[in-house]
Amino acid sequence: MIIAQVIGSAVATLKHDSLKETKLLLARPADANGKAKGEPFLAVDLVGAGEGELVIVSQGSSARMCMPQSSASSVDAAIVGILDSLHIDGAISFRKE
Amino acid sequence: MIIAQVIGSAVATLKHDSLKETKLLLARPADANGKAKGEPFLAVDLVGAGEGELVIVSQGSSARMCMPQSSASSVDAAIVGILDSLHIDGAISFRKE
Amino acid sequence: MIIAQVIGSAVATLKHDSLKETKLLLARPADANGKAKGEPFLAVDLVGAGEGELVIVSQGSSARMCMPQSSASSVDAAIVGILDSLHIDGAISFRKE
Amino acid sequence: MIIAQVIGSAVATLKHDSLKETKLLLARPADANGKAKGEPFLAVDLVGAGEGELVIVSQGSSARMCMPQSSASSVDAAIVGILDSLHIDGAISFRKE
Amino acid sequence: MIIAQVIGSAVATLKHDSLKETKLLLARPADANGKAKGEPFLAVDLVGAGEGELVIVSQGSSARMCMPQSSASSVDAAIVGILDSLHIDGAISFRKE
Repeated sequence: MIIAQVIGSAVATLKHDSLKETKLLLARPADANGKAKGEPFLAVDLVGAGEGELVIVSQGSSARMCMPQSSASSVDAAIVGILDSLHIDGAISFRKE
Repeated sequence: MIIAQVIGSAVATLKHDSLKETKLLLARPADANGKAKGEPFLAVDLVGAGEGELVIVSQGSSARMCMPQSSASSVDAAIVGILDSLHIDGAISFRKE
Repeated sequence: MIIAQVIGSAVATLKHDSLKETKLLLARPADANGKAKGEPFLAVDLVGAGEGELVIVSQGSSARMCMPQSSASSVDAAIVGILDSLHIDGAISFRKE
Repeated sequence: MIIAQVIGSAVATLKHDSLKETKLLLARPADANGKAKGEPFLAVDLVGAGEGELVIVSQGSSARMCMPQSSASSVDAAIVGILDSLHIDGAISFRKE
Repeated sequence: MIIAQVIGSAVATLKHDSLKETKLLLARPADANGKAKGEPFLAVDLVGAGEGELVIVSQGSSARMCMPQSSASSVDAAIVGILDSLHIDGAISFRKE
């Protein structure tokens, strides 16, 4: 799973059935200090994540398998956890405010 | 899912059965402002996307699972939504014209 | 699916059962003008592609699912179409000669 | 599978059911000398790996398939081995201390 | 499938059940001339490959599906062929010595 920061959201009226009734958030990959970098992508929110939060993102079939109708879902990225803290070498590299 | 812009289409007379009766569009990955960048790729259109539109693209088995015969489909990229707008930090970073 | 150009072929006497009786071609990712770039890779040919042709390549489980014994196949890249032309903004960016 | 070094751990109170009762470690891809490089990622620990150790990481559905409820797991990276040594051209490039 | 060169091997006493009784080799991605480049990775050997040989590597679920217990295997990379030669534009770009 990758570390990512929620930076916003997406609105799409016309979308595949498997994306209906899902919340599509905009996220960016982040480093272990919680700093976002790289290109934004879209992920379905499964844990009620809020803007600015550092989250755990699953990708590929592992994201799809968490959806209600996994055998017909187009989801390939899902937010599956909200990070409270990250620890490196006994020190805290990130703590949620 | 990634953000991409539809930039054109592809014609292929000779193709695998699973690609017959599909519309193959040419798309490029895009940023949160709707600016395309990176190499073009081919995706099956599942939502009636038009050239120039910013879309949601699913990849891998999640794209395949949306096809009628998912257990024998060669599709690994599908357009599954048309973006109306993207929102970052309460501001609109992209709005469909 | 990615755009690729067939640049050659591979010979391997010793190979996994699932690769026997397949034609292994050497291909390189290409841009929308048909220009090859990036590192060559190996793909199973499912459409009778010839050297120099611009083709459609499926990757991952979507390539595997097109093989006769998909549940025991090691194939992760397959040529699933031969491109006749690519169109960008109403103009032809590539046409097969 | 990739070579990675365990550099720390992650705490997430709010997470998907499939991540409950798992130990989430922070790891970085490493080279054949055991030197970490690249961006940290999160992996479920299946072998009792400790901080600083060089490990084997499986990704994608292969990581998911090792989880108890593989058909509903969001896990896409798992630590599946602890490296004792790596050997290149008859010489030892890495040995666990 | 990618072209890779076997550069060595890995020893791991503590590993997931699905990796027991497998031979773990160290390989590097290679170009069409057989020159290795990029970061080493670990792959299960299914064809009896030797150090220095140029091989065919399957990745992801396609590697897993070749393992005896594919539904519970952590394998995401497998050596599935030994290359005798590679041919580009009618000329030999690589020949096994």
